[in-house]
Amino acid sequence: MKAKIIITPKKAVLDPQGKTVQNALAHLGYTDVTAVHVGKYIEIELGSNTDPQKAREALDEACHKFLSNPIIEDYQLEIVP
Amino acid sequence: MKAKIIITPKKAVLDPQGKTVQNALAHLGYTDVTAVHVGKYIEIELGSNTDPQKAREALDEACHKFLSNPIIEDYQLEIVP
Repeated sequence: MKAKIIITPKKAVLDPQGKTVQNALAHLGYTDVTAVHVGKYIEIELGSNTDPQKAREALDEACHKFLSNPIIEDYQLEIVP
Repeated sequence: MKAKIIITPKKAVLDPQGKTVQNALAHLGYTDVTAVHVGKYIEIELGSNTDPQKAREALDEACHKFLSNPIIEDYQLEIVP
Protein backbone atom coordinates (compact mmCIF):
# COMPACT_ATOMS: atom_id res chain seq x y z
CA MET A 1 0.00 0.00 0.00
CA LYS A 2 1.20 3.47 -0.83
CA ALA A 3 0.33 7.01 0.16
CA LYS A 4 0.89 9.75 -2.38
CA ILE A 5 1.07 13.30 -1.12
CA ILE A 6 1.20 16.37 -3.34
CA ILE A 7 2.07 19.65 -1.65
CA THR A 8 1.63 22.86 -3.61
CA PRO A 9 1.94 26.52 -2.68
CA LYS A 10 -1.46 28.19 -2.22
CA LYS A 11 -2.57 30.21 -5.25
CA ALA A 12 -2.22 33.50 -3.35
CA VAL A 13 1.40 32.76 -2.36
CA LEU A 14 4.28 33.89 -4.57
CA ASP A 15 5.87 30.95 -6.35
CA PRO A 16 9.26 32.12 -7.68
CA GLN A 17 10.29 28.58 -8.62
CA GLY A 18 7.15 28.23 -10.75
CA LYS A 19 7.80 31.61 -12.36
CA THR A 20 11.36 30.54 -13.19
CA VAL A 21 10.16 27.31 -14.82
CA GLN A 22 7.58 29.30 -16.80
CA ASN A 23 10.28 31.71 -18.06
CA ALA A 24 12.56 28.81 -18.94
CA LEU A 25 9.75 27.14 -20.92
CA ALA A 26 9.12 30.42 -22.75
CA HIS A 27 12.82 30.63 -23.66
CA LEU A 28 12.62 27.09 -25.03
CA GLY A 29 9.88 28.31 -27.36
CA TYR A 30 6.98 26.91 -25.39
CA THR A 31 4.92 30.05 -24.92
CA ASP A 32 1.42 28.62 -24.49
CA VAL A 33 1.89 28.31 -20.74
CA THR A 34 -0.33 30.45 -18.55
CA ALA A 35 1.05 29.46 -15.13
CA VAL A 36 3.41 27.02 -13.46
CA HIS A 37 3.24 25.83 -9.87
CA VAL A 38 6.09 23.89 -8.34
CA GLY A 39 5.48 21.77 -5.29
CA LYS A 40 6.64 18.65 -3.51
CA TYR A 41 5.70 15.05 -4.05
CA ILE A 42 6.04 12.52 -1.25
CA GLU A 43 5.42 8.81 -1.76
CA ILE A 44 5.15 6.75 1.40
CA GLU A 45 5.26 2.97 1.21
CA LEU A 46 3.24 1.35 3.96
CA GLY A 47 3.24 -2.19 5.28
CA SER A 48 0.79 -4.41 3.38
CA ASN A 49 -1.45 -5.08 6.39
CA THR A 50 -1.97 -1.44 7.32
CA ASP A 51 -5.56 -0.30 7.77
CA PRO A 52 -6.17 2.30 4.98
CA GLN A 53 -8.51 4.37 7.15
CA LYS A 54 -6.03 4.58 10.04
CA ALA A 55 -3.16 5.30 7.66
CA ARG A 56 -5.15 8.14 6.12
CA GLU A 57 -5.87 9.68 9.52
CA ALA A 58 -2.27 9.38 10.73
CA LEU A 59 -0.83 10.77 7.49
CA ASP A 60 -3.39 13.56 7.36
CA GLU A 61 -2.16 14.61 10.79
CA ALA A 62 1.48 14.27 9.69
CA CYS A 63 0.79 16.38 6.58
CA HIS A 64 -0.82 19.06 8.67
CA LYS A 65 1.83 19.02 11.39
CA PHE A 66 5.13 18.72 9.60
CA LEU A 67 5.06 17.62 5.96
CA SER A 68 3.38 20.81 4.76
CA ASN A 69 3.06 24.33 6.06
CA PRO A 70 -0.73 24.82 6.08
CA ILE A 71 -0.38 28.61 6.14
CA ILE A 72 1.19 28.78 2.70
CA GLU A 73 0.69 25.29 1.25
CA ASP A 74 -2.15 22.98 0.28
CA TYR A 75 -1.83 19.23 0.22
CA GLN A 76 -3.62 16.31 -1.41
CA LEU A 77 -3.35 12.92 0.22
CA GLU A 78 -4.21 9.77 -1.69
CA ILE A 79 -3.99 6.20 -0.43
CA VAL A 80 -3.55 3.61 -3.17
CA PRO A 81 -3.63 -0.17 -2.64
CA MET B 1 -5.83 22.22 -19.76
CA LYS B 2 -3.16 21.22 -17.29
CA ALA B 3 -0.02 19.15 -17.32
CA LYS B 4 0.98 17.41 -14.12
CA ILE B 5 4.55 16.26 -13.79
CA ILE B 6 5.86 14.12 -10.96
CA ILE B 7 9.63 13.79 -10.69
CA THR B 8 11.05 11.20 -8.30
CA PRO B 9 14.58 9.98 -7.63
CA LYS B 10 15.28 6.60 -9.23
CA LYS B 11 14.98 3.70 -6.78
CA ALA B 12 18.72 3.01 -6.93
CA VAL B 13 19.63 6.61 -6.04
CA LEU B 14 20.11 7.64 -2.40
CA ASP B 15 17.21 9.75 -1.18
CA PRO B 16 18.34 11.44 2.05
CA GLN B 17 15.25 13.67 2.12
CA GLY B 18 13.01 10.61 1.99
CA LYS B 19 15.04 8.92 4.72
CA THR B 20 14.66 12.03 6.90
CA VAL B 21 10.89 12.08 6.43
CA GLN B 22 10.76 8.37 7.27
CA ASN B 23 12.72 8.95 10.50
CA ALA B 24 10.51 11.89 11.42
CA LEU B 25 7.38 9.78 10.88
CA ALA B 26 8.88 7.05 13.08
CA HIS B 27 9.54 9.62 15.83
CA LEU B 28 5.90 10.72 15.57
CA GLY B 29 4.93 7.13 16.33
CA TYR B 30 4.07 6.12 12.79
CA THR B 31 6.32 3.10 12.41
CA ASP B 32 4.49 1.13 9.72
CA VAL B 33 6.37 2.95 6.95
CA THR B 34 8.68 0.85 4.81
CA ALA B 35 10.07 3.59 2.56
CA VAL B 36 9.62 7.25 1.68
CA HIS B 37 10.52 8.91 -1.59
CA VAL B 38 10.53 12.68 -1.92
CA GLY B 39 10.30 14.25 -5.32
CA LYS B 40 9.03 17.30 -7.15
CA TYR B 41 5.59 18.12 -8.45
CA ILE B 42 5.14 20.58 -11.30
CA GLU B 43 1.73 21.72 -12.49
CA ILE B 44 1.69 23.57 -15.79
CA GLU B 45 -1.42 25.44 -16.87
CA LEU B 46 -1.80 25.54 -20.63
CA GLY B 47 -3.94 27.71 -22.86
CA SER B 48 -7.38 26.20 -23.45
CA ASN B 49 -6.89 25.75 -27.19
CA THR B 50 -3.60 23.87 -26.96
CA ASP B 51 -3.40 20.58 -28.83
CA PRO B 52 -2.95 17.88 -26.13
CA GLN B 53 -0.74 15.73 -28.36
CA LYS B 54 1.61 18.60 -29.20
CA ALA B 55 1.67 19.73 -25.57
CA ARG B 56 2.63 16.23 -24.48
CA GLU B 57 5.48 16.07 -26.98
CA ALA B 58 6.82 19.51 -26.07
CA LEU B 59 6.60 18.89 -22.34
CA ASP B 60 8.11 15.43 -22.66
CA GLU B 61 11.09 17.08 -24.30
CA ALA B 62 11.18 19.79 -21.62
CA CYS B 63 11.04 17.16 -18.86
CA HIS B 64 13.89 15.28 -20.41
CA LYS B 65 16.01 18.35 -21.13
CA PHE B 66 15.67 20.52 -18.09
CA LEU B 67 12.83 19.78 -15.68
CA SER B 68 14.32 16.48 -14.55
CA ASN B 69 17.76 14.93 -14.53
CA PRO B 70 17.18 11.66 -16.42
CA ILE B 71 20.36 10.11 -14.97
CA ILE B 72 19.07 10.11 -11.41
CA GLU B 73 15.36 10.92 -11.75
CA ASP B 74 12.24 9.42 -13.29
CA TYR B 75 9.29 11.50 -14.36
CA GLN B 76 5.61 10.91 -15.05
CA LEU B 77 3.81 13.34 -17.32
CA GLU B 78 0.04 13.52 -17.37
CA ILE B 79 -2.10 15.87 -19.44
CA VAL B 80 -5.54 16.54 -17.96
CA PRO B 81 -8.32 18.51 -19.69
